[in-house]
Amino acid sequence: MTDKQRQQDFIQQILTQSANSSPLQAQKTRGHGQAPVNIALSKYWGKRDKALNLPINGSVSISLPGLGTETTLSITENDRDIIRLNGTTLEPEATFAKRLSQFLNWFRADQTTAFSVDTSNSVPTAAGLASSASGYAALVLALNDLFDWQLPKESLSLLARFGSGSASRSLFDGFAVWHKGHQNDGMDSFAEPLATLWPELTIGLVKVDTREKPVGSTVGMQQTVDTCDLYKAWPEQAERELKTIVDAIQKKDFTLVGKTAEHNALSMHATMIATWPPIVYWQPESVAAMRMVWALREQGIEVYFTMDAGPNLKLLLQEKDQTAVKKAFGERDIQIDFIQPFE
Amino acid sequence: MTDKQRQQDFIQQILTQSANSSPLQAQKTRGHGQAPVNIALSKYWGKRDKALNLPINGSVSISLPGLGTETTLSITENDRDIIRLNGTTLEPEATFAKRLSQFLNWFRADQTTAFSVDTSNSVPTAAGLASSASGYAALVLALNDLFDWQLPKESLSLLARFGSGSASRSLFDGFAVWHKGHQNDGMDSFAEPLATLWPELTIGLVKVDTREKPVGSTVGMQQTVDTCDLYKAWPEQAERELKTIVDAIQKKDFTLVGKTAEHNALSMHATMIATWPPIVYWQPESVAAMRMVWALREQGIEVYFTMDAGPNLKLLLQEKDQTAVKKAFGERDIQIDFIQPFE
Repeated sequence: MTDKQRQQDFIQQILTQSANSSPLQAQKTRGHGQAPVNIALSKYWGKRDKALNLPINGSVSISLPGLGTETTLSITENDRDIIRLNGTTLEPEATFAKRLSQFLNWFRADQTTAFSVDTSNSVPTAAGLASSASGYAALVLALNDLFDWQLPKESLSLLARFGSGSASRSLFDGFAVWHKGHQNDGMDSFAEPLATLWPELTIGLVKVDTREKPVGSTVGMQQTVDTCDLYKAWPEQAERELKTIVDAIQKKDFTLVGKTAEHNALSMHATMIATWPPIVYWQPESVAAMRMVWALREQGIEVYFTMDAGPNLKLLLQEKDQTAVKKAFGERDIQIDFIQPFE
Repeated sequence: MTDKQRQQDFIQQILTQSANSSPLQAQKTRGHGQAPVNIALSKYWGKRDKALNLPINGSVSISLPGLGTETTLSITENDRDIIRLNGTTLEPEATFAKRLSQFLNWFRADQTTAFSVDTSNSVPTAAGLASSASGYAALVLALNDLFDWQLPKESLSLLARFGSGSASRSLFDGFAVWHKGHQNDGMDSFAEPLATLWPELTIGLVKVDTREKPVGSTVGMQQTVDTCDLYKAWPEQAERELKTIVDAIQKKDFTLVGKTAEHNALSMHATMIATWPPIVYWQPESVAAMRMVWALREQGIEVYFTMDAGPNLKLLLQEKDQTAVKKAFGERDIQIDFIQPFE
């Protein structure tokens, strides 16, 4: 079976669950979707199947309410897609527009169908704050709305994953676990929410650099899988740490969540650093911020960090320590914002 | 057999090769030794035997003439060792003095023997410029002189290794290969020189920070072996890259030496970064200097870097590019010195 056929089968299997018996016929003028960004506490790095976007390992995340993507979708009379990002219409050749249109190809009733997409991020695009995660989740929700599929969240998570792996987790508020899955058809690799609420948990967003990253995640993880010897040990570590973090979340063991998340993120970055050519997302200021976190821990303030495929740090702390952390970063003129995911 | 017995046997086996039939009787008033620092092109990280200081993997280095250690040694009437470092007499409790006296314990005729050691480094101590490598090599040469052992270089390399692993390579000018060895008695884990001379090869020393490093190599590598999952893949990679670099040196393939050395160093640092607690020897300025190297390569100037267990970069370049590299680093106010090991 070709990749194209496997992809077609995958989409088909999901759309047969649709409440709308003609799942590619719009049921309203516009569809609307909104989804949060999510921060992985144990990371996704490496695909076992590129056609279906299946990961080598599972991951667990926390969504950030109030930060994310809002998307409105309609069918247009135009002869090609019209894609607006943050209020600006993109050239059809722009990377972002091409990738979106390619994804939308799976949902056209025929070759003449064109979409009008209006998408807005409340986070900088492609700066390691996972705007593609909230973006594909919001788009899938908008499709579900426009076509009135009434699909369950897990099926929408499958579709979002097909667009961008980590988008599978952005269908949910709070904690979400994206299962790596075992099937070849990709139907068991979706995310599910964890029931735990954790009001004291606080996320600090340290903005080192919000420019577009030089190496995209898809290319970066492929280079790592292809050239990094150390990566061989990653899948087992990632699956083990995923379980450790899920257990620790359920027990609200902050220390164990924090240290496992930090170790997991540093290990993912280690596999990138040991790739050839080297992939170093860190900026000098990233290292300065890490050292600040370690200095705070030495002072007894329990704060940990995680980092995605970019230079920015996301801190994990408890509400009671927010003032001390804010002060320490403020003194060094490092910009930091705080979010409590369960407030 | 206890560690102590194995160590005694090791020293004994070497001293039986001595030309002096009473190898712990001084044959002159003072012994003298001088040895260069060396920069590993493929790294030593991890011990398979702590008692005999045997490495998990072999390594290859280049010595830097003019930078290193000079040591004068004599027997003193004093009741304990007198250790002078760079002109200053150390307290016997100082870490450096204690470690040196412990090493000298193996070479006392009886418990009343005390040494006077006068050692001078032309490199900052413990700042990642491997002063312990030149230090133990110079000390072993001074012992060989004082006791008139007339031992072959390979045996002196064994003794130096026993003091500090990478010191095994500082017995030689030019390139040296330290074999990991296979025997349990440690007698086959010594360094040998490579015959290749390479006048165009230039080393750039980028000084980011010359303060003492927070985590010493011995402790750092043990933490890595104990807690870093990714390290499992390191020994095989290190042995393969050692062979690649030795072959490339013999063919004077600068590109292959450079990229393999950079990848090897980054991979070693990756294992440290993926250790818990994390070991990050990088300073913000280290990352700035790396990015400078990569920017130069993008401009077609072929320069690579390596880093030891510290924040400083050592650049590998060819004589023809020295002016361009000097200019680029100068513009960013980063201090850099150049050495041609074969000049």
